[in-house]
Amino acid sequence: MTVSPLPLAEFVVRVDNVIFSVDTDQNRLLVLLVQRQQPPFIGYWSLPGTLVRQGESLEAAAYRTLAEKIRVSNLYLEQLYTFGESDRNPTYGKRYLSVSYFALVRFADAELIVPGELPVQWFALSACPDLAFDHSKILAYGHRRLCNKLEYSPVAFDVLPEYFTLNDLYQFYSTVLGANFSDYSNFRSRLLKLGILQDTHQKVIRGAGRPATLYRFDREAFAALKDKPLVFV
Amino acid sequence: MTVSPLPLAEFVVRVDNVIFSVDTDQNRLLVLLVQRQQPPFIGYWSLPGTLVRQGESLEAAAYRTLAEKIRVSNLYLEQLYTFGESDRNPTYGKRYLSVSYFALVRFADAELIVPGELPVQWFALSACPDLAFDHSKILAYGHRRLCNKLEYSPVAFDVLPEYFTLNDLYQFYSTVLGANFSDYSNFRSRLLKLGILQDTHQKVIRGAGRPATLYRFDREAFAALKDKPLVFV
Repeated sequence: MTVSPLPLAEFVVRVDNVIFSVDTDQNRLLVLLVQRQQPPFIGYWSLPGTLVRQGESLEAAAYRTLAEKIRVSNLYLEQLYTFGESDRNPTYGKRYLSVSYFALVRFADAELIVPGELPVQWFALSACPDLAFDHSKILAYGHRRLCNKLEYSPVAFDVLPEYFTLNDLYQFYSTVLGANFSDYSNFRSRLLKLGILQDTHQKVIRGAGRPATLYRFDREAFAALKDKPLVFV
Repeated sequence: MTVSPLPLAEFVVRVDNVIFSVDTDQNRLLVLLVQRQQPPFIGYWSLPGTLVRQGESLEAAAYRTLAEKIRVSNLYLEQLYTFGESDRNPTYGKRYLSVSYFALVRFADAELIVPGELPVQWFALSACPDLAFDHSKILAYGHRRLCNKLEYSPVAFDVLPEYFTLNDLYQFYSTVLGANFSDYSNFRSRLLKLGILQDTHQKVIRGAGRPATLYRFDREAFAALKDKPLVFV
């Protein structure tokens, strides 16, 4: 420890969660928000978060605040980024540090817990209001991480239904990455070439289209590749 | 803010830097360490770090502590991970949070600043001692990030000499990722196929080998690809 000429900062530490989901029926990328009931930013929507308690790890605090808002099976949270600018919460006397966490949950499995006093709601990312504090910045950072994970990891298969068509998969990627991320035939041939999609030899008819093959993610085939860097788009 | 049944934790926040370099002459992956002069862990080596001061951003603290240890041009630091287990520094009364930062610097450009009172030294990662606190864990996390960056980003070209042979590049990757990360001919054809290496039409003789072509990184060609996910190994 060096002797500091300026006094050390004292911090209160928050965790804030960026929880994404994809409504595959309506092709909407969703984020979970709660509405603030106290000043500052009263009435504004914000990321669900909490202050860290004595003896509690950062991760435990992130899981605790999440479990108060949503019931979901097989939740996976990962640390996103720590925001610690000295002016990020000017209202309180103390300096606030926010350690943000990131998750992508399966929409069909996620059940919101809505107590009267703390409104909690999914918002389409495209129709998201301005958030309290610097939470819009945290959310934008989380969206970049999500896009990145989709490109380089098989996270999509954790939240898609077990059986899907290649078009379902393409719609899922388009919903998160934007409509022009890749053309369908390149996407299709790249994914099939990876050898991680298992053809179920079953067909399904969606809308007015021709019958389309149902696939499932082949976890065994993927396990053999998992130390190899891959690109999914 | 919800009302907490348990008291909130009060934190002192550190930044700790994982600074890597590659000695391309000796094919060694290096990490920058400082030797502690006070208890706890007196005499142990640790990551260079500092406590965050009032009004100072996390990033500013990371740059400040780095600038006290090393002079380097074009330094790029990025946030790595925040470690905040409640028992990570049991000696002090307060709870310590460590926001770690990561950098890879060009060995030839990095000049160590060694004042008498705080020994600072490059260590080969393969011969690194047990570090103070949980710094061995932070270092291992940093090494994973470095491997990942090498696989998915052109960070190698920021620290290699401007002109290099394909074998130099392969040695660099082997030094960081381990000897068996890829066989040379696959690596070579993959890299050439990306179209980001410019043939200088000059040859160089290294040791007893045949003359080898010198390449340079083609930043313009890479800029055209930068929004496309790529794999470099």
